Amino acid sequence: MSQIRHALTVKREDDFAKWYQEVIAAADLAEESGVRGCMVIKPWGYGIWERIQRLMDDRIKAAGVQNCYFPLFIPLANFTREAEHVEGFAKEMAVVTHHRLISDGKGGLIPDPAAKLEEPLVVRPTSETIIGDAMARWVQSWRDLPLLTNQWANVVRWEMRTRMFLRTSEFLWQEGHTAHETREDALAETHRALEMYRACAEDDLALPVIAGEKPENERFPGAVETWSIEAMMQDGKALQAGTSHYLGTNFAHAAGIQYQDREGSQQYCHTTSWGVSTRLIGGVIMTHGDDDGLRVPPAIAPQQIVIIPMLREAPEDAELRAYCESVRNALAVQTALGERVRVLLDTKPGKAAAKRWDWVRKGAPIIVEVGPRDMASGRVTWLRRDHLYWTDADREKAWGGNPPQIDLSVGKPALIGSPKGDFVAGAAAVLEAIQTSLYEEARARRDASITRGVTEWQAVVDHFEKGGKYPGWVEVEWSKPTGTALDAVVEKLKAVKLTIRNVPRGSEPASGACIFTGAPATERILVARAY
Amino acid sequence: MSQIRHALTVKREDDFAKWYQEVIAAADLAEESGVRGCMVIKPWGYGIWERIQRLMDDRIKAAGVQNCYFPLFIPLANFTREAEHVEGFAKEMAVVTHHRLISDGKGGLIPDPAAKLEEPLVVRPTSETIIGDAMARWVQSWRDLPLLTNQWANVVRWEMRTRMFLRTSEFLWQEGHTAHETREDALAETHRALEMYRACAEDDLALPVIAGEKPENERFPGAVETWSIEAMMQDGKALQAGTSHYLGTNFAHAAGIQYQDREGSQQYCHTTSWGVSTRLIGGVIMTHGDDDGLRVPPAIAPQQIVIIPMLREAPEDAELRAYCESVRNALAVQTALGERVRVLLDTKPGKAAAKRWDWVRKGAPIIVEVGPRDMASGRVTWLRRDHLYWTDADREKAWGGNPPQIDLSVGKPALIGSPKGDFVAGAAAVLEAIQTSLYEEARARRDASITRGVTEWQAVVDHFEKGGKYPGWVEVEWSKPTGTALDAVVEKLKAVKLTIRNVPRGSEPASGACIFTGAPATERILVARAY
Repeated sequence: MSQIRHALTVKREDDFAKWYQEVIAAADLAEESGVRGCMVIKPWGYGIWERIQRLMDDRIKAAGVQNCYFPLFIPLANFTREAEHVEGFAKEMAVVTHHRLISDGKGGLIPDPAAKLEEPLVVRPTSETIIGDAMARWVQSWRDLPLLTNQWANVVRWEMRTRMFLRTSEFLWQEGHTAHETREDALAETHRALEMYRACAEDDLALPVIAGEKPENERFPGAVETWSIEAMMQDGKALQAGTSHYLGTNFAHAAGIQYQDREGSQQYCHTTSWGVSTRLIGGVIMTHGDDDGLRVPPAIAPQQIVIIPMLREAPEDAELRAYCESVRNALAVQTALGERVRVLLDTKPGKAAAKRWDWVRKGAPIIVEVGPRDMASGRVTWLRRDHLYWTDADREKAWGGNPPQIDLSVGKPALIGSPKGDFVAGAAAVLEAIQTSLYEEARARRDASITRGVTEWQAVVDHFEKGGKYPGWVEVEWSKPTGTALDAVVEKLKAVKLTIRNVPRGSEPASGACIFTGAPATERILVARAY
Repeated sequence: MSQIRHALTVKREDDFAKWYQEVIAAADLAEESGVRGCMVIKPWGYGIWERIQRLMDDRIKAAGVQNCYFPLFIPLANFTREAEHVEGFAKEMAVVTHHRLISDGKGGLIPDPAAKLEEPLVVRPTSETIIGDAMARWVQSWRDLPLLTNQWANVVRWEMRTRMFLRTSEFLWQEGHTAHETREDALAETHRALEMYRACAEDDLALPVIAGEKPENERFPGAVETWSIEAMMQDGKALQAGTSHYLGTNFAHAAGIQYQDREGSQQYCHTTSWGVSTRLIGGVIMTHGDDDGLRVPPAIAPQQIVIIPMLREAPEDAELRAYCESVRNALAVQTALGERVRVLLDTKPGKAAAKRWDWVRKGAPIIVEVGPRDMASGRVTWLRRDHLYWTDADREKAWGGNPPQIDLSVGKPALIGSPKGDFVAGAAAVLEAIQTSLYEEARARRDASITRGVTEWQAVVDHFEKGGKYPGWVEVEWSKPTGTALDAVVEKLKAVKLTIRNVPRGSEPASGACIFTGAPATERILVARAY
């Protein structure tokens, strides 16, 4: 196989962390803002978030959950009230103490000492307490239940070490908060949200995930059960991509969320909360990115097909432009993945080849390049971003001894030539194939990187210390210790930088001994390094 | 005309301000949050905002503007830099000074003195300065222009006296920010945004507005020109419903937004900004609300048709429910106002009549009530929220001597009986008729409340002091004084609680004398009391 000259300067295998930063810059997704820990999400990155929002929001609304908006600021007293809740947030929050600026007399501005707030306000790190207050007002009787609310909002958790999309002081998310009559209803909602996240991750983001319950030490503070979806990045590390919590009546007690039941007595509600954030975009990058930049799954691509006319600032441009517009218009009425195809005709100034590489780095699923020769023969030239290069094996597999009119030079981007009509007629199917292919590729890699049947702790240590660059995840059996026994397990894992990801939903029953305690095992757990 | 018993306790004519508060509560739009100056936007209110967002965002994207997201926090230095900009914001802003909470040793929490920020952060009151910084990074050459960005975000301006939707410390808005090569390009964008706002207000929100330029004293600080759309509320007061600013090169100078022009020399960009906010919902309430609650224009109604089955917790309920579902399904595939009809089957517990009145107060455009008798005869009973009661004149006008099967009791809600098929077939047209009718009603009232041809200042004063409860607006001619001469005019107006709204776009040239100075007039202006 010939040497490929890739569009990025850093390869995944050489420096995954640096590669991640380069993809974000090269795909024009986001940048540092100059404000500590906060990023600017640029149009292509925000467009992906808008797509995720739209698809998730449709799922949320279909479940009968209603969107609301709650205040950015939370009174300090709310946190004092929920001591346990606060403990878990390490109290690293942005605190508003003044409501006015005045001149410092030296050309600068300072917080006005005369405008100090009597009670400081905290910028919401999550909204359980403020939404709990609202629920206490809104719920009177069983007739008001279930109360199913969600909000799309920005939240702030002061982070010391930040990483774009994965850990930023301000991030965007949705937080669902629901109240129910019974434990069973609340658990059903917890699982509905978890399953919604799994479906959205797998079907829309093409992220294979494992849904399961978090161990006690990884529970959301105040939760009775915390469930997560876990995705595997290309470096084998885990990314918690969404969580769903059953909160029991803990938050209902703290906020006074009570209802009159069918028999007329007062009961505390069982509540849930569940959220996903812009962190999902980090997951998309580390799952689908390659050494040429990002590859965006078509379902969440702001533009699924980008058409680049080879304009020459010459009179013939008008005709070429019209030809490209006809392609665009024909594509725009196609339906792929249940929606109208999103297609962009990119007529910005610049050389077509440079623009092609810009879109390769951004990861538009299909990139079409049209020059005067294509036009003259009624054709278009295009490439699939998910399969940018062809190897000898690809050639053989795809076309056997009968290749179409297509530049299949090994190690060069596979520019495919097609009659315009054929391309238009087949484009939706290609988009759907890309969506499936990205998912299958990620799932095969993930499945090949989960090691099972390890029964000795030392074998786990060896696996991660000597098991190659990307050791992936290991499944082991344990006896679900609690309290100090669990603390000991956590410390043991921490010493080799490992964490328990979750107890996969629906996994085989345990049959052996606990890898930590030797006691009879009760569950299978996934152990991994994580973001 | 018989006495109508309305669904609200306060009538508009008795206490408009109190009526406004009651509509918000009765239509379940929003409520006080307990956090100073911040409101909770409840599902029906937020649903209206989501509809406005969707329709406005489509218009924004169609103009080639791209959404981004910028940080919530702005370093203090950005404000110091733009002294003029800050001056206008009266410095009433939320200031973050600490990033951690610690125990006060007495069971409470306090900002950790050890976690004081070196430089305080301001919660964005608007994002000109932070987006200006980004533009300075993004723009290098004329090829990068125009740069067309927008963000949907929450912003905070510390308000002493708040009023839900109209003036809250935190509110939701969109802010467009664009950079251009020339003054002409930037002015064209300023007017494109203004026209977009006019179209969205009139076509989607059914709010008749007057687009025009604000006088110098009402300009956004740092702007060269500020344009607005002004809507008239039912109490005759003006509501500024959206603004579009041409900022010249003022912000480009402050942030260093420069580009290399086609000849290779460095130039400052001409920039614009434009925004609308959740204030629009206040405008919808005060324009379309009546003594029974809100009337939501169908284009922005989260649910356009609500079907209420008269369930009796009896076995026959199943059949009735199925009948209602068939009506819902038949409606859901109809298209009104260019989109699928949004229809809700409301099966929540409760008496049908009580639920009908809930939806009347919320202002769902069409409310359908279906009982066993309707079902038996293949009919439905429904009402148009925009025309809830019938007078003798209505009867005569609508049906002459030949009324259909319809309860036309004067002073009672006009419940209309129709065969199911007829109703379904006609529903989209009724929704479109309601949209038009709400707009026409508001426009007729607005037009009748603008007084023209007033040439003496005393006549203006008399008009507002003695011209009845709702004096509306007065159009006068002026000589467009500036500086201290303008200050004198503003003071004169302020003494009678008046403001200049704008110089209506495309109005007749002035022909007389300035009502303030006696000099030859150059423009027509609208003078009004305002929110």
